[in-house]
Amino acid sequence: MKPGPNRLAVTGIGNAMLDIITQDSREVFRDLGLTKAAMELIGEHQLQAFFDAMGPTIQMSGGSVANSIAGVAALGGTCGYIGKVADDDFGKRFTHDLRSMGVEVDLAIATAEEGATGRCHVFISDDAQRTMATYLGASNQLRVEDIRDDLIARSEITYIEGYLFDLPPAKQAVRKVVNFAHEHDSMVALSLSDMFCVERHRRDFLELVTSDVDVLLANETEIKALFQVASLGKAFELIEELGVLAVVTRGPHGADVATVSGVVSVPAKEVETVVDQNGAGDMFAAGFLYGLALGADPVEAASLGSLCAGEVITHLGARPEGDLELLAIEAGLL
Amino acid sequence: MKPGPNRLAVTGIGNAMLDIITQDSREVFRDLGLTKAAMELIGEHQLQAFFDAMGPTIQMSGGSVANSIAGVAALGGTCGYIGKVADDDFGKRFTHDLRSMGVEVDLAIATAEEGATGRCHVFISDDAQRTMATYLGASNQLRVEDIRDDLIARSEITYIEGYLFDLPPAKQAVRKVVNFAHEHDSMVALSLSDMFCVERHRRDFLELVTSDVDVLLANETEIKALFQVASLGKAFELIEELGVLAVVTRGPHGADVATVSGVVSVPAKEVETVVDQNGAGDMFAAGFLYGLALGADPVEAASLGSLCAGEVITHLGARPEGDLELLAIEAGLL
Repeated sequence: MKPGPNRLAVTGIGNAMLDIITQDSREVFRDLGLTKAAMELIGEHQLQAFFDAMGPTIQMSGGSVANSIAGVAALGGTCGYIGKVADDDFGKRFTHDLRSMGVEVDLAIATAEEGATGRCHVFISDDAQRTMATYLGASNQLRVEDIRDDLIARSEITYIEGYLFDLPPAKQAVRKVVNFAHEHDSMVALSLSDMFCVERHRRDFLELVTSDVDVLLANETEIKALFQVASLGKAFELIEELGVLAVVTRGPHGADVATVSGVVSVPAKEVETVVDQNGAGDMFAAGFLYGLALGADPVEAASLGSLCAGEVITHLGARPEGDLELLAIEAGLL
Repeated sequence: MKPGPNRLAVTGIGNAMLDIITQDSREVFRDLGLTKAAMELIGEHQLQAFFDAMGPTIQMSGGSVANSIAGVAALGGTCGYIGKVADDDFGKRFTHDLRSMGVEVDLAIATAEEGATGRCHVFISDDAQRTMATYLGASNQLRVEDIRDDLIARSEITYIEGYLFDLPPAKQAVRKVVNFAHEHDSMVALSLSDMFCVERHRRDFLELVTSDVDVLLANETEIKALFQVASLGKAFELIEELGVLAVVTRGPHGADVATVSGVVSVPAKEVETVVDQNGAGDMFAAGFLYGLALGADPVEAASLGSLCAGEVITHLGARPEGDLELLAIEAGLL
C-alpha cells in the first residue's frame, strides 16, 4: 500500500551536513587525535587544520538521517526532511541535493552567530572503515521555533536522528517533533546514531524510547550502550519488555529484527568488494523504514534495508549511486 | 629508471577546474540544449540554471590534464601542475587536492575580472556516457606572464591540454611553455582534448604538432578531425610522415600506438561494470606518460595507461579511487 496523495512515507529530522571524504591509506586521522571508526566533534577553529591534513577530497551531501531520506527518495518513496543550514555554499548544495531528488525540505536558515553549514570530514581506511570529525555548526542549532508540523502531519513515519541531542535547544525541538507526530498518528522512529552519542545522552534516549518511540534503529554497540548490557540477547530481552519494534544492524552479519514472535536475523547482501562502509546503516534505515511505511512486515522491510546497504558500500560516499528502486523491483522487494 | 632527485616525471599545464557530477537517468541535459557525450562551453550567467537542473551532485577536482597529473601522483610519480584558479572556495579545493597528493603546483591567481574558478557540470547517463557543460572562468585566463620555467625545466615530459587554446592569451602562454620545454630538453606532449576543440583550433594544433610536439594523445574522433580523414589508418599514415609518437585511445577497443615499426594495438583492461567513462582518457594518459618518463617503450607505457583507465571507469569521478601504484606493481607494470 503506497501512501495516498499528498502523504509522505517518511520525514526525517537531523543534522544537515556535507561530507568531505578522503581515502586515507596512511591513516593520517591518527595524527589528528581521532579514534578509528568513531566520530568526534570539532569546532570551527579546527576546520582548516583538518582539511589541510586530508588527501584529495570528494564532497557530497551527507548527514545520517538525510542520507536515509535520500535513500527513500531513491527507492521511489515520497519523503520530507527537516533541518538547519547556514546561508552559504554548503547549505545551498545540501538543499539542492535533497530537493533535486524530490524530497520536500523544510530547512531553517541559521543566523551568522549560529555558525556555518555543518560538515563531516570522513577518512576512509584501506579496510573500508570510516573515521569522522564533525563540525556541527548550523545543523545542530535547530530550535523549537524552527519546527513546523506540516511535513510531520503528512508522514507515515517521523524519523529522528540521535545526534540532534548534542545541543540543548535541539532536545526541545525533538520534543515538539514527537508531540506533532503523536497528534497526527505518525510513527516515531529513532536512530541512536553512534555509541558515543548514546553515552552522552543515555538518560534522554531511554526516556524517549520508553515513552514515545515506536521504531528503534541501532547497531550492536549502540544498543548495548543504551541498555548497558554485554550481550545482544540481553538487549533484546529489554526491548521486548518495552514493546518497541527494534532493528539492530550487524555489518556483514546482517540485521536482527525484534518482532512479536522473537528475534529474526536477516542476512547482509553479499558484495564483491566493500569500498566504504559509510552510509551502510543509513541506507539500511532507508529500506527498512520505507518498507514499514508501505505496510511490509518488519522482516520484509529489513530485507529491503539489506539491499540498500549492500549498494552503498560498493562505492565512496554515503548516498546511493545506483538505481535503488530498480534493484528493489528486480529483487522482488518493491 | 626513475627520474633523479628534484626531477619530475611529468608536469601538466591545463584548465584547472572542479567537476560537479550528477547521475542523469532522465537525461535532463537534453533540456539544457547539450549534445550527448560532448562538451559545451557556458558563461557565468548560466551557472545557476545548470546547477538547478542537476540532480544530487558529487563534487571533486577535475580538469583533463590535472586528472592525468593526479593519476601520475597516484602511480607514485613525481609531478607538477601549472594552471590558474580564482581566490575562492573552488580554487582552494583544487589546489588542496593536487598538493595533498604530492603534486608541485604553480597556480596563478586570477583577478576578479578574470572570473571564478572553472567548473565542469558532468551529466552521467545510464550507459555511462558523460555530457559536459564547462564554465572556463579563471582556468582559461592563463597569460604569458603567468608561465615560469621552474617545473618545466625539471620535467621529463611537459603535457599540454588542447582546451587551453580556447582563449587567445593562453595560446601565447602555450608558446612560452613549449619554448621552455625545448630549452630544457623536456619532451612536449599534447592532448587534443575533444573533437570540437580540434575543430575550433585545427590550424594551431597542426602547426604545433608539426613543429613542436613529441608525443600526441588523442581519441579516434579527435585524430580524424585533426587530419580531416575518415579512417584511422589514413591518420596513422600522416602521423608516420610527421614522425611524432602518437597514441589513439579507442574506448573498449583499447589503444593504438604508432611506433617506428608500425601501429600496435593494446587491449583495454576488462572491467565488470562501467559506471562512468569520465576520466578514462585522462587516466590512460597518466599511465602512458609516466611509463614513457620512466623509459618504458610506448607499448609497455600504453599497457600502464590501460590499467589506469580500467580503474577509473568503475566508479563515479575522473580521478582514481583505488591504489594505482599497487595495482600497477601487481600487474608487473611498475
